[in-house]
Amino acid sequence: MSLFEKHKATLEAAVKALSLRTYYSPYPESPKAYGDEADGKAKFWMSSTMNNNYNELINEGSIGWTGEEVSPFLQVGIGVKYPIFAIDTLINNAKEAGKTWGKASIEDRAGVLIDCLDQIKSRFFDIAYATMHTTGQSYMMSFQASGPHASDRALEAVAMGYRELTSIPHEVEWVKSMGKFDLKMKKNWTPVPKGIALVIGCSTFPIWNTVPGLFAALITGNATIIKPHPKAILPIAIIVEELQKAFASAGLNPKTVQLAVDHTDKPITKLLAENKAVKTVDFTGSSEFGNYIEGLNKTTFTEKAGVNSIILDSVNDLKAVAGNIAFSASLYSGQMCTAPQNIFISSNGVQTSEGLVPYDEVVKAITTAITGLVDNPKAGPGTLGAIQSDVTYKRVQEAKNLGGNLLLDTKSIVNEEFKDARIATPVLIELNKDQSNIFNKECFGPIVFIIKTAGLEDSIALTKALVEEKGALTCGAYTTDQNMQNKIAEEMNSVFIPVSFNFTGAGFINSHAAFSDFHLTGGNPAGNASFANSEFVSKRFVWVGNRYM
Amino acid sequence: MSLFEKHKATLEAAVKALSLRTYYSPYPESPKAYGDEADGKAKFWMSSTMNNNYNELINEGSIGWTGEEVSPFLQVGIGVKYPIFAIDTLINNAKEAGKTWGKASIEDRAGVLIDCLDQIKSRFFDIAYATMHTTGQSYMMSFQASGPHASDRALEAVAMGYRELTSIPHEVEWVKSMGKFDLKMKKNWTPVPKGIALVIGCSTFPIWNTVPGLFAALITGNATIIKPHPKAILPIAIIVEELQKAFASAGLNPKTVQLAVDHTDKPITKLLAENKAVKTVDFTGSSEFGNYIEGLNKTTFTEKAGVNSIILDSVNDLKAVAGNIAFSASLYSGQMCTAPQNIFISSNGVQTSEGLVPYDEVVKAITTAITGLVDNPKAGPGTLGAIQSDVTYKRVQEAKNLGGNLLLDTKSIVNEEFKDARIATPVLIELNKDQSNIFNKECFGPIVFIIKTAGLEDSIALTKALVEEKGALTCGAYTTDQNMQNKIAEEMNSVFIPVSFNFTGAGFINSHAAFSDFHLTGGNPAGNASFANSEFVSKRFVWVGNRYM
Repeated sequence: MSLFEKHKATLEAAVKALSLRTYYSPYPESPKAYGDEADGKAKFWMSSTMNNNYNELINEGSIGWTGEEVSPFLQVGIGVKYPIFAIDTLINNAKEAGKTWGKASIEDRAGVLIDCLDQIKSRFFDIAYATMHTTGQSYMMSFQASGPHASDRALEAVAMGYRELTSIPHEVEWVKSMGKFDLKMKKNWTPVPKGIALVIGCSTFPIWNTVPGLFAALITGNATIIKPHPKAILPIAIIVEELQKAFASAGLNPKTVQLAVDHTDKPITKLLAENKAVKTVDFTGSSEFGNYIEGLNKTTFTEKAGVNSIILDSVNDLKAVAGNIAFSASLYSGQMCTAPQNIFISSNGVQTSEGLVPYDEVVKAITTAITGLVDNPKAGPGTLGAIQSDVTYKRVQEAKNLGGNLLLDTKSIVNEEFKDARIATPVLIELNKDQSNIFNKECFGPIVFIIKTAGLEDSIALTKALVEEKGALTCGAYTTDQNMQNKIAEEMNSVFIPVSFNFTGAGFINSHAAFSDFHLTGGNPAGNASFANSEFVSKRFVWVGNRYM
Repeated sequence: MSLFEKHKATLEAAVKALSLRTYYSPYPESPKAYGDEADGKAKFWMSSTMNNNYNELINEGSIGWTGEEVSPFLQVGIGVKYPIFAIDTLINNAKEAGKTWGKASIEDRAGVLIDCLDQIKSRFFDIAYATMHTTGQSYMMSFQASGPHASDRALEAVAMGYRELTSIPHEVEWVKSMGKFDLKMKKNWTPVPKGIALVIGCSTFPIWNTVPGLFAALITGNATIIKPHPKAILPIAIIVEELQKAFASAGLNPKTVQLAVDHTDKPITKLLAENKAVKTVDFTGSSEFGNYIEGLNKTTFTEKAGVNSIILDSVNDLKAVAGNIAFSASLYSGQMCTAPQNIFISSNGVQTSEGLVPYDEVVKAITTAITGLVDNPKAGPGTLGAIQSDVTYKRVQEAKNLGGNLLLDTKSIVNEEFKDARIATPVLIELNKDQSNIFNKECFGPIVFIIKTAGLEDSIALTKALVEEKGALTCGAYTTDQNMQNKIAEEMNSVFIPVSFNFTGAGFINSHAAFSDFHLTGGNPAGNASFANSEFVSKRFVWVGNRYM
């Protein structure tokens, strides 16, 4: 049985899910689904991997070793070193590998990629520890975001690719009646890969944000070079290791995927991105660098900075809403691209099922909810995780000087398991609407602004202007009035931002579910990509049709 | 019955044709299919339209009239004047119209657009005369290219748009089991139009090259401004007239489509293209201007210049092949973007079913075929049509000074119907492969180079390099060797150019059939668009999904 046949049912279910957009995931998100021994084995793997060369990657032709990752939980270097390669070596390897991979059938590509996702599944716990000790995500988030949720997104890209690549027949007989005779031609169409793909990773979600572009590039036949963030290599190294093994065992060139590691002192990202042979670039990171990537005149897929807002108008249960917002803002210390930063509240207060709650009490409810969450020793550490970088940590420490009314300053809390973890609870600052110089930019990390507005119209206008100017990935809105819901949806959608309405309980605006929610719309300044619409794959290859008489 | 219901069968057949890619056209290409009186009526229409203001377009808010079209067949101005508008008026009208059109249902949009194509069908003969007397296309080509073939492409864009716009459900219930409870959300998705579309027309195919982008922009909900070439307005004015009527009679804002006419002395294209409210730009024309359009950092769809080649290796019947090439190069005097310019022939000659024919005899066969075609009074005038512009005419007259060995100079022939027609037969020049400074650029018009190469490998390498550097829309190849066919296909497809093999008889490399052949691949320097792949519509709107708890 071919790998394609082996995974055909999964692929077909995934393709169907793209159209249905109801819940679908073939990879269980609960660690419990993976057996009792998995976690212990992974702990052992992590400790034996630390302070060693990572020998599981192809290192033929490498010119040295480097590594500078620091665990945000331990605040010591993890000591893993990775092979480094000359740019020319990477490019030439990719050119060579692309020749074979680009000609592999769509079925063969889908088969080996989905089979590899099965292998990756057996590494979810290794991946979890690798993610924890590079990004600072909590154990559970590391497991879920880098494991099943990322694999969902990878499969989504494979499925979308398969759908697009099979949307045109391989060969047809074309017959046109010319009256007295028929004009006949044979025609065939080939989806020709654009060329070498570069996927640039970020430090906070080194797998989740990398695999959509990676698997989209691969299913469409492009040899791919991954340039990870120098501070978050280990998680994606596992993915590359599994892909290289999968390619080799399928008799393909393992260098179809390569890891291009660099050191902050000697960055290679621009050298790779500007290389003529690189035809597509996926990027997650700062707006400044993202704009540079978009300006390269190549096919690009970017996720840049955005400023996410919540509009608070009317609610049923204020406590439930405050709790939901507190969690959304605190989860992974606000280091998610989908975390809310600005909360717009009318100075007239918020209507609830128990009557109008004055503005100050609404603010207090949110303040109390954040404090209650982070000070709860059972919930706080697991929610906050750790701060990925010193830069973010410093930004949070200095946030109190931004201006406005400091409602909550950051502080540290105890993580019993990791006493040395770099922890910072959210800073909460109250601003007036005319202090937009403070709130109209992304303050990455646990920094939240409550902005007092003149009313709902005002909140909508401020949010809309911000989305248009700076972009956003999420927008939350709370209103029990159907007309206001429609108005908010219309205004926000017109600037290409989706709205999550009245989220409470287990629904958080931070979460985007594969096969259902598009991650980014691609239409506002937060990025030009959308995981995974049809363009996310179709821009990576070109239909070329020959005709024969 | 709604317009959607009225045209549902056509739409469904068109959507199906996109996947089958076998022959499909709902608009007969023979003038005979449209009744005996149609031509006479159109002649009358043309003569009463000339030397008048074109009053059939909305001219509310216009600030004057202009027109400078010259009939290439009569070499006198046709004297039609069109309303001109301030940029702000056009933009504000489009903004206003876009509000309604963008919210119209996909079904309503498809219904009114296909219904309008039915109305346009009743104008095919008017369109034919309008096209003749602006572009210089012969009567038959004017009828077919601007009439049925263009409408095929318009319907193709509508069908592709409908397919993409209905690929995501409007609304779903999303349920995720969380173990002890279900997390439930309602979700809906809206394809939000990107904004005002600008479609920039060219002088040689003012309808065929305009309607794909126009109908793609419209089906995806974008109010559209058409900026025609100042020398070829009348044909597309008819289309705009019919669209404005169709919108008005459907109770929609007729300004959903506007014609933005300018004068060569005071061009407005850049003012429109750079306007912030314009979000997408379709363009057909020079590479220089096309590169400027692509550099605007907007969503663009370009068709620019290219250099099309034919590789002559081995044939069955040399005379049939020479005749086919002669026709391809002479049709509309080589003013088609798909016309061949460079013919690469090995100095070793060409293998035929009757043995090897020496190089010089092959050259002679092509020379003879061209002379035979253009000197035939029954075939010559109808094939050549007339030269659209003075610039092209001058280029052809001066081609003999380009260098190389002049095999055929241009001359005029008599067109009995139009004694004053601007006619120029093809110039045929023989070059060596090292005279690439002459053949490696587009020499628009009836200028053909025969390039003597060292053999097939050489011909392939030269063609491939040219496609990579300058782009191309077509590539013809003649070889009876299956291995060579595969090699040529592989090499050319790798630089994103399709190959038409062994075309003789009624098959010409110039022709691209809607619903089957992609016009342009979008992958080589001749343009970034492809009529009509999924991207041709999907880039014109953004999926935005809201979630409700």
